[in-house]
Amino acid sequence: MMENGWHTTKIRVRYKDTDRMGVVYYGNYLTYFEIGRAEYMRALGFPYSSLESKGYTLVVTEAIAKYHANVGYDSLIKVKTAITDLRKVRVRFDYEVISEEEKRLVSGHTVHACMNSKLKPAKIPPDMMKTMEEYTFVYLLVAFPSDIFSNIQEASGI
Amino acid sequence: MMENGWHTTKIRVRYKDTDRMGVVYYGNYLTYFEIGRAEYMRALGFPYSSLESKGYTLVVTEAIAKYHANVGYDSLIKVKTAITDLRKVRVRFDYEVISEEEKRLVSGHTVHACMNSKLKPAKIPPDMMKTMEEYTFVYLLVAFPSDIFSNIQEASGI
Amino acid sequence: MMENGWHTTKIRVRYKDTDRMGVVYYGNYLTYFEIGRAEYMRALGFPYSSLESKGYTLVVTEAIAKYHANVGYDSLIKVKTAITDLRKVRVRFDYEVISEEEKRLVSGHTVHACMNSKLKPAKIPPDMMKTMEEYTFVYLLVAFPSDIFSNIQEASGI
Amino acid sequence: MMENGWHTTKIRVRYKDTDRMGVVYYGNYLTYFEIGRAEYMRALGFPYSSLESKGYTLVVTEAIAKYHANVGYDSLIKVKTAITDLRKVRVRFDYEVISEEEKRLVSGHTVHACMNSKLKPAKIPPDMMKTMEEYTFVYLLVAFPSDIFSNIQEASGI
Repeated sequence: MMENGWHTTKIRVRYKDTDRMGVVYYGNYLTYFEIGRAEYMRALGFPYSSLESKGYTLVVTEAIAKYHANVGYDSLIKVKTAITDLRKVRVRFDYEVISEEEKRLVSGHTVHACMNSKLKPAKIPPDMMKTMEEYTFVYLLVAFPSDIFSNIQEASGI
Repeated sequence: MMENGWHTTKIRVRYKDTDRMGVVYYGNYLTYFEIGRAEYMRALGFPYSSLESKGYTLVVTEAIAKYHANVGYDSLIKVKTAITDLRKVRVRFDYEVISEEEKRLVSGHTVHACMNSKLKPAKIPPDMMKTMEEYTFVYLLVAFPSDIFSNIQEASGI
Repeated sequence: MMENGWHTTKIRVRYKDTDRMGVVYYGNYLTYFEIGRAEYMRALGFPYSSLESKGYTLVVTEAIAKYHANVGYDSLIKVKTAITDLRKVRVRFDYEVISEEEKRLVSGHTVHACMNSKLKPAKIPPDMMKTMEEYTFVYLLVAFPSDIFSNIQEASGI
Repeated sequence: MMENGWHTTKIRVRYKDTDRMGVVYYGNYLTYFEIGRAEYMRALGFPYSSLESKGYTLVVTEAIAKYHANVGYDSLIKVKTAITDLRKVRVRFDYEVISEEEKRLVSGHTVHACMNSKLKPAKIPPDMMKTMEEYTFVYLLVAFPSDIFSNIQEASGI
């Protein structure tokens, strides 16, 4: 599901994902982030697996998670994912992990560098770039409406 | 090994820790951070397991990782851990993950809130606090020597 | 989906689940088995989480996996699960993990002892037992039709 | 440490390895088996990583684990590993996972097929084979002393 630039995926918490505190182990949210951006890319028509089969890879350069509340085994959580910054060779995904009761569990982001098969920086493929730009624009428009218009005004010289 | 407020632990990269890129999966560095702070606490004489058996828990509120270089299966990496900020109910650990060839792989930090058995904020036990303060002071003294002295001067009214 | 005593669940292979061979790490199939039996139990109306909240637990005593073929990232695999043996305090689940192309990847089984909250052997709750028996009977009837009828004949004294 | 054909490795149980039962998740013992055989191979002078860099791989065809007792966070367990069967293109490792108090936790085995870089069956490299044979012989001699001698008698025509 895609809304206001945010894509939503559901994940069922596995027994394996919990730790002796009875809740999801903190490092496993980075796996949930991975699932969120993989399903976002698939929804855009560019599954990450097909990107890799074309010789590209999105190498993680930064990952941040803020933990607001816990959740345990068998919970059906949601990962919301948006592209919040997009450059020629770099992309940033933001995430919100939310419980069934709409409680905010974890928020965070990851930054990725696009690399070619020799692990050198490479421009994001143009067709994928174009589609990602559209969704990033929707996200920015809803998140910071006034900024967008002031930027457009500046750009148009009014 | 403890030096300048930094504790060092060695970890052998497991086959399980790698992904199809042939390197350590990005989320697994949070497990390496866990091992780093567990061994740091043990070196201080306060193993995390004994803290939990006394009814305390250090709940993660924030985790950040920056990825500088990759490493693959069977590598013998080092996790360096320091306490860089210490409050009554809160503690921050910083980490540097380093390869055998002394290459910087990942740096980051985690912030933890001390909770009691009812998951309410609780003061860090006094004996543990005292020991952690000493090591935090050593870290700060080496990392920011001038700041420490200027603060002392201010405090002493010179 | 339930057919001939077998329940089917779909699982998308995560990047995290792969190893440097580019395929699912062998130990992760035990997590897929976990998901298979959890969804089977849910389909029966007895989610494993509700069983645990009543104070019961199904402790694993044995796990076996035979590896026939490999599968990589983003594959949409199926786990087929059946109850193949059912005793008062013990249950055995069999699994078949199958690729999208209907290729057999991994087969195996797990044996579980039912325990109470004090981790002592306990009879499987009667309502759950009754439902499980029905599905086990369907499985056995399809898998070993002649045996079932010969047993019934013996039992009925013909 | 190598004794009677068994190699012993110590592993500290990570928080990540536990589940909401407070003990090691059942699938993680297959990771402990991996560590056991990796350290066994290293002790023999043939680290698994160097085998892979020569183009060989030991593909798992079967894994079995029997669970006798549980163990929790921070436990310092031992994995004992022996080669119990050795053929031209196949090898079987047996494992015993033991607690600090010498309690038997999990026993099991894995069977591996030796493959070349094209994933076709390949003979185990001769120098590695020779060393493995010696340790397998020691294991069999201690485990089944009478069988070994009766076989030798038959072979020598007495």
